[in-house]
Amino acid sequence: MKLSNYFLPLIKENPKEAEITSHNLMLRAGLIRQVTSGIYNWLPLGLAVLQNIQQVIREEMLAIGCNEILMPTTQPADLWQESGRYEAYGKEMLRITDRHERPMLYGPTHEEVVTDLFRKTVKSYKDLPLNLYQIQWKFRDEIRPRFGVMRGREFLMKDGYSFDIDADSARTTYFKYLGAYLKIFKRLGLTAIPVKADPGAIGGELSHEFHILANTGESEVYYDAKFDELAKQDKVDVEEYLNLYSAADEMHDASKAPANVKSARGIEVGHIFNFAQKYSIPMDAEVQTPDGKVAINGGSYGIGVSRIVAALIEANHDDKGILWDAKVAPFKVGLVNIKPKDEASTKIADKLYADLQAAGISVLYDEKDESAGIKFSRMDLIGLPYQIIIGPRLAKDDKAEFKVRASGEAQEIEVDEALSYISS
Amino acid sequence: MKLSNYFLPLIKENPKEAEITSHNLMLRAGLIRQVTSGIYNWLPLGLAVLQNIQQVIREEMLAIGCNEILMPTTQPADLWQESGRYEAYGKEMLRITDRHERPMLYGPTHEEVVTDLFRKTVKSYKDLPLNLYQIQWKFRDEIRPRFGVMRGREFLMKDGYSFDIDADSARTTYFKYLGAYLKIFKRLGLTAIPVKADPGAIGGELSHEFHILANTGESEVYYDAKFDELAKQDKVDVEEYLNLYSAADEMHDASKAPANVKSARGIEVGHIFNFAQKYSIPMDAEVQTPDGKVAINGGSYGIGVSRIVAALIEANHDDKGILWDAKVAPFKVGLVNIKPKDEASTKIADKLYADLQAAGISVLYDEKDESAGIKFSRMDLIGLPYQIIIGPRLAKDDKAEFKVRASGEAQEIEVDEALSYISS
Repeated sequence: MKLSNYFLPLIKENPKEAEITSHNLMLRAGLIRQVTSGIYNWLPLGLAVLQNIQQVIREEMLAIGCNEILMPTTQPADLWQESGRYEAYGKEMLRITDRHERPMLYGPTHEEVVTDLFRKTVKSYKDLPLNLYQIQWKFRDEIRPRFGVMRGREFLMKDGYSFDIDADSARTTYFKYLGAYLKIFKRLGLTAIPVKADPGAIGGELSHEFHILANTGESEVYYDAKFDELAKQDKVDVEEYLNLYSAADEMHDASKAPANVKSARGIEVGHIFNFAQKYSIPMDAEVQTPDGKVAINGGSYGIGVSRIVAALIEANHDDKGILWDAKVAPFKVGLVNIKPKDEASTKIADKLYADLQAAGISVLYDEKDESAGIKFSRMDLIGLPYQIIIGPRLAKDDKAEFKVRASGEAQEIEVDEALSYISS
Repeated sequence: MKLSNYFLPLIKENPKEAEITSHNLMLRAGLIRQVTSGIYNWLPLGLAVLQNIQQVIREEMLAIGCNEILMPTTQPADLWQESGRYEAYGKEMLRITDRHERPMLYGPTHEEVVTDLFRKTVKSYKDLPLNLYQIQWKFRDEIRPRFGVMRGREFLMKDGYSFDIDADSARTTYFKYLGAYLKIFKRLGLTAIPVKADPGAIGGELSHEFHILANTGESEVYYDAKFDELAKQDKVDVEEYLNLYSAADEMHDASKAPANVKSARGIEVGHIFNFAQKYSIPMDAEVQTPDGKVAINGGSYGIGVSRIVAALIEANHDDKGILWDAKVAPFKVGLVNIKPKDEASTKIADKLYADLQAAGISVLYDEKDESAGIKFSRMDLIGLPYQIIIGPRLAKDDKAEFKVRASGEAQEIEVDEALSYISS
């Protein structure tokens, strides 16, 4: 993508409304713009990250046998009256009345809709276990939206739902998701600490939250120091994670914590629940078995997709801007032509742009006629993992500067060899 | 994907609520299930088609230099008060009041939000032309939702918006979109007739609708018989299309139509508008030029993404079920193991399944232990372009049956050569 054709509106001053770094950087680097309180436009740079995260989630959901569906954002109120949550949910639920005066709502979550779908389509225990998920926008009418997309009102979630014949099978399924979640966060370049949680409003028996460690996290997380080692391993071993102590603020018990316990602020990016028959009994989600009808055992599994964009930035930034991990970066490479009016530079930069694209490496090509200072600070702000800088001094010898954004390490390279540095 | 792990709930009887073929087939073949009036769950088979259509649209939007963004489904009412459409839009707009008693709405379209984004981010004529688009869910509170996703309430649209410095430039942009639309529909395997339209509620000067010909279309379309020839050409030549006569019902003038005029029912799947300064003037969407501030010239460009799924089925089906074009099919191949208990059959089918996946060919593998009759009618109903059928009689000689779903042509092939039939 050429920068002159890319919609990247940056903001120079620190936006007053931004209380935390990710909110500040998402506004300044042109990832989002606010429409109204807690509701945002996603601009090309932010949307690309959102889509890359979704791709990682889809692959891991497929790997554990989940089927992707898409449920509507709007829902009829009667399903929530049936489950008993319509009144209980309170003012965070955005309630709507349609033109025929029917009560509806903008879904804050989809247990009711998916349970209704299940009971209408699945009749036999032979079709279990069944695992469905979606990636869909939700609305929670927060009383005080803040921190940008970290606590917005309209937000993107991956929500998965499981249907099992009995409690044992549901428990096995639950831990399969737990493993998949650890893999997802690892692939996204995040260290996630699973902590036992209070099932709360969703209800049920077994629940874990996943916290990303970052200074601006909303809760204090206590965890065995060995989690730091697990984060460095390539393979995810669920048992190893579950054997270690971890707890959020309200569940922490110092007398049970090991000697090497650490604590840090955590951002909740995932939450999984085994809620047994909480929805299947009131909503008659039953299957036929050789011994008669049985209400299924359910679970739900959420990841805050839009929130992860902010969490990634909270975890990875410096004083110049964002540091994207290559797996989620909106482009892998930023190609900077310092002086487009210099013929040798532009010839080299144009060719390198074509070569990168041909090799399937996503690249943002700054070919605008602006000062080097503007170009450098913009590229640092948006945080693409690699920068290749072409200027008259090196171009005359067919050389360029290759810079790793996170470490700041820069070296002179032969232009012909540029691609080998990126793939490495 | 193995069928035993795929969520594909079929319906045997013709659903009473389905008045048209696409609605009937989308329910029976497990593409969608209704949640409430005009609001649907998309099941895996339907969602896959929806995603494939989006991919084609994204590629063609990128090709004409559009930037993908994502605006929220919910919008503040004040932007619509500013443009003057808040009262005018009537009961089709789903109006919402949030917990702080602020008036909001579920966007039926996004001219106001995108114009607001533009005025907050673009200041100079040097940044024009600018083209933004999104693929996002919309809500129109139809008084009588019907025909499934053809006239639903919550529906998926691609909506693009252009910003040009003057009327001439805006007109050039408009025809660039028109060309891109013709390419998109051609790639989707659809014959689309562009017809001049009444700009109506969106307002403006120049407007075209795109109609797919199908017996169940909602309006009569009159068109030069030469459109049929254009549909067969590989290349899209916008001039050729625009030189031919075409008109919908209300705009048709028999005295101006050529001798070879034909008429047929049409389903509207796209609509483009050049609305000049209709939004930029009331909303102050201006850029700085050497001669002072200028209100931009705008256009909007819609494609009914979810509606296209239904239109594709209206245009391509037979009495056994759906006929998917390979470009949008949820899977390219249906692999049927007639008798999984037969060792030779299963060995061959398992290997072919692995080979197809390794070759990057999407395949649905029916390895369920059911009767051949159920397997054949199910595979015909869901309409994957190619079927490979493995059974004991042929398997013992390392052969299989290869069937093209649309033509019904079937032939015996060597299993080793199966892949060559698909790529051809």
